[in-house]
Amino acid sequence: SQFSSATKKTLNKDKPCKRFVLYFHDILFGGSDVANATSAAVANETGLGNFKFGKLIVFDDPMTKDNHLLSPAVARAQGFYFYDMKNDYNSWFAYTLVFNSTEHKGTLNIMGVDIMAAQTRDLSIVGGTGDFFMARGIATFVTDTFQGAKYFRLKMDIKLYECY
Amino acid sequence: SQFSSATKKTLNKDKPCKRFVLYFHDILFGGSDVANATSAAVANETGLGNFKFGKLIVFDDPMTKDNHLLSPAVARAQGFYFYDMKNDYNSWFAYTLVFNSTEHKGTLNIMGVDIMAAQTRDLSIVGGTGDFFMARGIATFVTDTFQGAKYFRLKMDIKLYECY
Amino acid sequence: SQFSSATKKTLNKDKPCKRFVLYFHDILFGGSDVANATSAAVANETGLGNFKFGKLIVFDDPMTKDNHLLSPAVARAQGFYFYDMKNDYNSWFAYTLVFNSTEHKGTLNIMGVDIMAAQTRDLSIVGGTGDFFMARGIATFVTDTFQGAKYFRLKMDIKLYECY
Repeated sequence: SQFSSATKKTLNKDKPCKRFVLYFHDILFGGSDVANATSAAVANETGLGNFKFGKLIVFDDPMTKDNHLLSPAVARAQGFYFYDMKNDYNSWFAYTLVFNSTEHKGTLNIMGVDIMAAQTRDLSIVGGTGDFFMARGIATFVTDTFQGAKYFRLKMDIKLYECY
Repeated sequence: SQFSSATKKTLNKDKPCKRFVLYFHDILFGGSDVANATSAAVANETGLGNFKFGKLIVFDDPMTKDNHLLSPAVARAQGFYFYDMKNDYNSWFAYTLVFNSTEHKGTLNIMGVDIMAAQTRDLSIVGGTGDFFMARGIATFVTDTFQGAKYFRLKMDIKLYECY
Repeated sequence: SQFSSATKKTLNKDKPCKRFVLYFHDILFGGSDVANATSAAVANETGLGNFKFGKLIVFDDPMTKDNHLLSPAVARAQGFYFYDMKNDYNSWFAYTLVFNSTEHKGTLNIMGVDIMAAQTRDLSIVGGTGDFFMARGIATFVTDTFQGAKYFRLKMDIKLYECY
């Protein structure tokens, strides 16, 4: 055990130790479409502005390797997001990617702000389990499509910089 | 400051730098049992399936060293969980273990999915404070008992792999 | 790739690799004050005790360098908190500091318990992006003022111990 002050280390952002791209599909429950829906609102918007401030959605969304909704899910994304800006659409996410395939078993835990006005936005991968034991990294979101309140799809570029 | 790409390191999952087991007791508020209850629902289930999808519970639960509800609490677990699957029971947790005893002072922050169908499931310990300054690790959940909607108990095996 | 068990390392708590103080201003929406309000309740207190147990607030709060509400915001804090104790005021936070200035661009992701009865309390900075790529650290809260249910201000001392 050695005593040292915190040190600055340099990681190359372009060289993650593991990287893959997945697509996140969110179909908001409308009250009767149980078979298709993958998420549901648990708190309503609050009236603070006109951009759904406070609306809170819980999801169990399929993750696919390409951007087709009906492609086989290689993981699930389980967690929640809520809208949190009064003068524009903006949201905040915390969720877990759950892998249970021959390719990967384990989870990645992710949180951060989805600055919807930005072309790309980075969230933190704060931990992992199983095949991703103790991992950390960055998840970069790009909106792939947005079809009203009913369906949206995000491209998530998963980059791990700490692998064990 | 040296420049390097992310490297793969190996940690031995069987050799945490700190480990202890605690039991989590959750007694859901029914409306009149203020003295006994330790958690309360803040959002109702949504009707997306029959497994409480979206039901959100805030808790301040006692943590004990053995699995007796009335054993002295050695920590509190403060946070929330919600149900998030439409075809089975499954939940997602984010919470803090708060220690304030002669043995330990400080907190551990934990998040991840509680895959209730699995025998054991791993969540990420994403940070710590006080005696657990900057810690990271894995919390492994095992269901110890489940008594309807009113009371459940989880065994939490806390393993730290980064200790400072 | 080398095999090793988890090791105990020592970081000097007094020597973060980066440190700054910011003030967090929260003005709770009352139903008509859209122009001023920065946060809104999305779930009501549950009746478990008399300290707002379960009340859940989403916020997009300005962060300033001094403790004046009208000073220019150098960052936004976007996230949520809820009350979680039945016999005293206590709360739990998860949020993102969003920087978009010439001085800093990027985010810091933070979670933990705000033990309101304590003089100071530490939360975990669990990840960062942009200028704060992969950062970790501690955010120390001090209540600067508390004006009923309407406005409160926290001093947040941001200390990073992992910088890249």
